[in-house]
Amino acid sequence: MIETRLTRAFGLEHPIVSAPMALAAGGALAAAVTGAGALGLIGGGYGDPDWIETAFRDAGNARVGCGFITWKMAERPELLTRALEHDPAALFLSFGDPRPFAGEIAAAGVPLICQVQTLAHAREAIEAGARVIVAQGGEAGGHGATRATMTLVPEVADLLAREAPEVLLLAAGGIADGRGLAAALMLGADGVLVGTRLWASREALVHEATQAAAVAAGGDQTIRSSLPDIARRLDWPAPFTIRTVENDFTRTWQDDPEGLRARGDIPDAYATAFASGDTTVAPPIAGEAVGLIHDIPGAGEIVTRIATEAEALLGGGWNR
Amino acid sequence: MIETRLTRAFGLEHPIVSAPMALAAGGALAAAVTGAGALGLIGGGYGDPDWIETAFRDAGNARVGCGFITWKMAERPELLTRALEHDPAALFLSFGDPRPFAGEIAAAGVPLICQVQTLAHAREAIEAGARVIVAQGGEAGGHGATRATMTLVPEVADLLAREAPEVLLLAAGGIADGRGLAAALMLGADGVLVGTRLWASREALVHEATQAAAVAAGGDQTIRSSLPDIARRLDWPAPFTIRTVENDFTRTWQDDPEGLRARGDIPDAYATAFASGDTTVAPPIAGEAVGLIHDIPGAGEIVTRIATEAEALLGGGWNR
Repeated sequence: MIETRLTRAFGLEHPIVSAPMALAAGGALAAAVTGAGALGLIGGGYGDPDWIETAFRDAGNARVGCGFITWKMAERPELLTRALEHDPAALFLSFGDPRPFAGEIAAAGVPLICQVQTLAHAREAIEAGARVIVAQGGEAGGHGATRATMTLVPEVADLLAREAPEVLLLAAGGIADGRGLAAALMLGADGVLVGTRLWASREALVHEATQAAAVAAGGDQTIRSSLPDIARRLDWPAPFTIRTVENDFTRTWQDDPEGLRARGDIPDAYATAFASGDTTVAPPIAGEAVGLIHDIPGAGEIVTRIATEAEALLGGGWNR
Repeated sequence: MIETRLTRAFGLEHPIVSAPMALAAGGALAAAVTGAGALGLIGGGYGDPDWIETAFRDAGNARVGCGFITWKMAERPELLTRALEHDPAALFLSFGDPRPFAGEIAAAGVPLICQVQTLAHAREAIEAGARVIVAQGGEAGGHGATRATMTLVPEVADLLAREAPEVLLLAAGGIADGRGLAAALMLGADGVLVGTRLWASREALVHEATQAAAVAAGGDQTIRSSLPDIARRLDWPAPFTIRTVENDFTRTWQDDPEGLRARGDIPDAYATAFASGDTTVAPPIAGEAVGLIHDIPGAGEIVTRIATEAEALLGGGWNR
């Protein structure tokens, strides 16, 4: 068992939190992660209230948290209020200024987890009174920015040591196995946030064909772009882009995003492809860590594998 | 003392190799690194034979290796022959296909170290008979590509475990302190290659004002681009770009590389600025790890610090 400030603060067996991946992290995934001794988060995502209610219901009695895309939730802040009524284990905000929402979250007595992509974001999170900061590197799947986990984590750790030593730190981006967890702890993190590895689990709300396309890819076949957001007419603010596996769609439009924007037929075609697992159009939303992923097990087994492997490494197994 | 397959193979005290940074890694730097118990490499760089001879002379009796930019050295392969006449501790190749040169290096009895940025590069390095592969993430300073250290290292480790388990693996990109070394060992590396942290040392052939500008920057202030190469009229092949601190020059030309290419006065102005430490024009060539660097010590002290900090972490110091 790896005990850290995170496991003590949240009563966990393993210093692992699941990423609240929009559309993919429903209640079954979050509950399976919590059931395995980590902390599961529902992906509140783009803010469909029925989806969020269903996710909490699907989580059953498991103690799970909920995450939002901050800039999107800000358009309908009542979603935050409704999520807090479920007494989540944590409220997770990423991709936008968390400070306007910190008061309501604190008043509800719910720990705030802020994911950050830069040092400036980390300073906002400290101001917001975050209990936990997640330093997310650009190798992550889905939305993110450009800093790498390897340098962002220790740089944020140094900032916290100077200015807010009580705030816990998680590493995110590129962490799919025990090697990543053990490395993150060495970099100064109290635990990790795991996205892509759990996206590729049985409980994730992802089409099987899409998962299969990701498992078949290596890390060199992923790219960061705005193309899926343009296709979906989602106005993501700078500096955030989305990492996917590359496919015919990304190769076609890579050098012509304005052409993509002008195509009126794309949103429907993209939505249809996403729903049906047609990965020639809608690419798997996954990170560089796809190169470390070779199967689609249950989420609980993934948590156990990561923790077991990391424990062996920390016990001296790194030395071959 | 951290003993790994690297320290045993090369007779080192510490599993640390200095990056053969073009123009910055001369004989004094390489010798200081070797003198501290690591492996120092001279940066053969763009292939000025007098510069290389001077560097070997400046290294004195210290056992050092030499590195080349492969695609550039290929234009004058006699430079490789001359470097091998110095019986270097290792010959390091990066940024181009190493296979055409592997035979000559093997015949000289010199260990080949190949730096790679993708899995395809790693396969070329295995074919070349590399004794050591360096997996370099894009957070690195200077030239590199886009993969992150956090995922590239374990993915290459898995490739080597399957296909060439006798080949050693180093991590490069973003490693500036003991946290980075300890994390790299957890990811499956046998040691690390350190660039930016040693670029910011007393022995590095870098203008003091340029070093000071880098130390003042955080990791969020570095960017990858081709702008310095365009300014210097260096025809770097894809996929390689160069990470620098951002400055007036990069901000001015970021969205207009063709405008920069068309300006005939730029090469001289850039060269003058580089030589005089005018960082408004010639930016510090440094990686995201600048955010972890706060002083300009001697290279030997840097090696000792990294090793000491990593040893404490591996001994349990990660657990706060």
